[in-house]
Amino acid sequence: MNTFLDDASALLGPRGLVTDADLLSPWLTDWRGRYHGRALAMALPGSTAEVSALVKLCARHGVAIVPQGGNSGMCGGATPDASGAQLLLSLRRMDAVRAFDAAARQVTCEAGVILETLHRIAQAEGLRFPLSLGGKGSATVGGLISTNAGGTQVLRHGTMRALVLGLEAVLADGSVWSALTPLRKDNRGFDLKQLLIGSEGTLGIITASTLRLVPAVAERIVVWAGVGSIHDARALLLHGEERLGAAMEGFEVMPEATLRAVLDYLPDARAPLERSHPWHVLIEVVADRACAANLRERTETALAEAFASGLVHDAVLSASEGQAEAFWTLRESVAPAERAKGPAVQHDISVPVERMPDFIEAAVATMEQRHPEIEAVAFGHLGDGNVHFHVIAPPGAVAGAWQDLEGKAISAEVYDMVAEWGGSISAEHGIGQAKLEELERLGDPVSLALLRQVKAALDPQGILNPGKLVRLAPLGATP
Amino acid sequence: MNTFLDDASALLGPRGLVTDADLLSPWLTDWRGRYHGRALAMALPGSTAEVSALVKLCARHGVAIVPQGGNSGMCGGATPDASGAQLLLSLRRMDAVRAFDAAARQVTCEAGVILETLHRIAQAEGLRFPLSLGGKGSATVGGLISTNAGGTQVLRHGTMRALVLGLEAVLADGSVWSALTPLRKDNRGFDLKQLLIGSEGTLGIITASTLRLVPAVAERIVVWAGVGSIHDARALLLHGEERLGAAMEGFEVMPEATLRAVLDYLPDARAPLERSHPWHVLIEVVADRACAANLRERTETALAEAFASGLVHDAVLSASEGQAEAFWTLRESVAPAERAKGPAVQHDISVPVERMPDFIEAAVATMEQRHPEIEAVAFGHLGDGNVHFHVIAPPGAVAGAWQDLEGKAISAEVYDMVAEWGGSISAEHGIGQAKLEELERLGDPVSLALLRQVKAALDPQGILNPGKLVRLAPLGATP
Repeated sequence: MNTFLDDASALLGPRGLVTDADLLSPWLTDWRGRYHGRALAMALPGSTAEVSALVKLCARHGVAIVPQGGNSGMCGGATPDASGAQLLLSLRRMDAVRAFDAAARQVTCEAGVILETLHRIAQAEGLRFPLSLGGKGSATVGGLISTNAGGTQVLRHGTMRALVLGLEAVLADGSVWSALTPLRKDNRGFDLKQLLIGSEGTLGIITASTLRLVPAVAERIVVWAGVGSIHDARALLLHGEERLGAAMEGFEVMPEATLRAVLDYLPDARAPLERSHPWHVLIEVVADRACAANLRERTETALAEAFASGLVHDAVLSASEGQAEAFWTLRESVAPAERAKGPAVQHDISVPVERMPDFIEAAVATMEQRHPEIEAVAFGHLGDGNVHFHVIAPPGAVAGAWQDLEGKAISAEVYDMVAEWGGSISAEHGIGQAKLEELERLGDPVSLALLRQVKAALDPQGILNPGKLVRLAPLGATP
Repeated sequence: MNTFLDDASALLGPRGLVTDADLLSPWLTDWRGRYHGRALAMALPGSTAEVSALVKLCARHGVAIVPQGGNSGMCGGATPDASGAQLLLSLRRMDAVRAFDAAARQVTCEAGVILETLHRIAQAEGLRFPLSLGGKGSATVGGLISTNAGGTQVLRHGTMRALVLGLEAVLADGSVWSALTPLRKDNRGFDLKQLLIGSEGTLGIITASTLRLVPAVAERIVVWAGVGSIHDARALLLHGEERLGAAMEGFEVMPEATLRAVLDYLPDARAPLERSHPWHVLIEVVADRACAANLRERTETALAEAFASGLVHDAVLSASEGQAEAFWTLRESVAPAERAKGPAVQHDISVPVERMPDFIEAAVATMEQRHPEIEAVAFGHLGDGNVHFHVIAPPGAVAGAWQDLEGKAISAEVYDMVAEWGGSISAEHGIGQAKLEELERLGDPVSLALLRQVKAALDPQGILNPGKLVRLAPLGATP
């Protein structure tokens, strides 16, 4: 191993290899403090050529690589295992913007560029990168692509997959696959780009990408509406799609109890509507310059219709950017507010959009019936058929111990239901190490076989992020 | 082989297996008459279960399978080889619509459904399937997905890849991979769907899919504009994107000489504009009910600005559906009009949109300089960076012989240029057998290695459409 570290050090230089335990330690635990690992060292290459040379060195020595971006993933995908034999490969130093073409609306940037930085760069040119999420201050472009990140604007602009025009990656043998030039149409074989997006570093290490930008927002309205049921929320979604079309960028829901929890958690915040309603809907309506003309009028008309038909009980349109932001703050405070209430297990799940209302009702009822002391809450991206389903521990439960035992059993029950309803146990957070066993337990055997075949073909040595997303020998199987 | 045919016949029944030479013959040649093959038989399975059983039988006997949809591909991807040992597998009988959900705007249909039928089914429910192309009367959904088809609405709605929400396919070992349930968000590993889309039957046989529909067109305007250069056409594209946003669904170009050829070919057609212009632009502007309100006004304003700045020399907006169709007839008659002029070689190519004007000028000049008697013409989907670059033989050239000799050499030169400019030698038609050698000659070695690794992993026996798109041992290589 010393030979390996010496060679790596010679290759990367003093800034490029960290072995000091104190400097390493923050990167060996995920941001939520759930996964802990050890590492041989942390490599911080400064260029694609260095990544390539490093991977070749790792392949020669059989050293496993754990790629890491902003270390803000939700499933432990960027945390090494406990062996101390894996190399942490941080892409943070690779944060150059290689090219920006405002007319073509595209930017080519390296994997380490932080999402918030990308937002600023686009904004400065009158453009927008239309994907955002809570971790935007630390999440990197490479990590977002590797996990096919979602967020709050997927309804209109899609997940990361829809925004990647070109890609550069280092493969398991150290070869550089370069497909950064964006071609709108290219049918030279199956799309290798798509294979790497969402592969969580198990098939290659993303070093750069060309991303799609959209025109800046010219007009924005945030609607807060109270509705009588989650079914009415879905009916309002369809009504909005019909009347507002592409202008509807986000459609988020939360039940009354969740809004109350948020208001308890944020003492300065106030409820958007006077009275209480079984469910609350936040709708983001946005237009660029080409479509801004009558956006408010169209939104008001659509809401008036929904009010007249009884779909909406009460609603308010943001009158200023400040009010729009205040509405979003309520939505974005759901996770911390729930956390403040005590231990919980969270599930990032999706089912077909049209089945979501029935699923939410069934899942909440089933869980609360089986486990009378817990509280089950669903909130989030109804427009994408993706909710975050949280089960909050009974009062007095011990954090940590509860999640490991009761929480884990409850999660298995939730995932069983999701599987029965034709849904996904990971809508946007990925698999990482957190959900690998559940994926192997519940995944379609043909899909799992395909994942393994592709993994074995592209990484025969198994050095790319082993133990995440896909493994050749499932736990408990005789190799 | 008799055992195989007996088993296949027992499996598929009398309607399911055709061995009669006369009945087979129309399917052994592609629609343009360029590729000819022989086949052991043509299987016409009626269900996914039959396809699965048949593939298992083929795997057992080592019989290669050539899947075929409407037999309207451009690259011979559905034509068997000359050996007579391959089985033609037609999906035509699998033409059921399994589910239609108007509210969710999605349809699940089998591979053999014809594109025009799909258009009708959607229209009957006030919806639209937003992909269309010349062969819509014969092209099947399975073939369109297998080749990731494009067409004239890609600018707004993307290629087939963007419209596939779910997929069902039979893999090389006969297992059925079923992922028809559409989830807007699903991060359970890399997206296997994307791998099968555009794989031309080399990784699996697509048997069904769930497709995205969009609202019906409420208002449609077709603009015909005359511009001074291909650079001005690109500037007009940017102006249109800025002013009309998502309403601009198509942006097609042709030079004056091509319009003249079309008018000669269609004696009853008339030129949209009075005078001649170096380049002509056809712009399709479309809105659904949510956005139709002021579409004509917005289009007129955008054009007036382009006129004032000198970008557009003259323009006319369609005043009726009849006129809109008449403009499109001119565009769609380019290919037959060019064919009527004599032998030619055609190239379906793309380069980055922003480089396309320079590329067209350079490619036309280079070809006409090197081969003084030919005529080089570029026309098509400028909005997607995809043009069809045709080189027409000198007067008196003998059809067939010219293509095989001079034409082939000229094609190699065109593809060399495309590769130098960072483009694709197949923008929308695929590779099939037509472009396999050129892909192997010009393709990036890392990409080619990846294609082969995936192919070897998913079809280790090499029974799925061998000789198309990707082959493990390139021509001339010692296996």
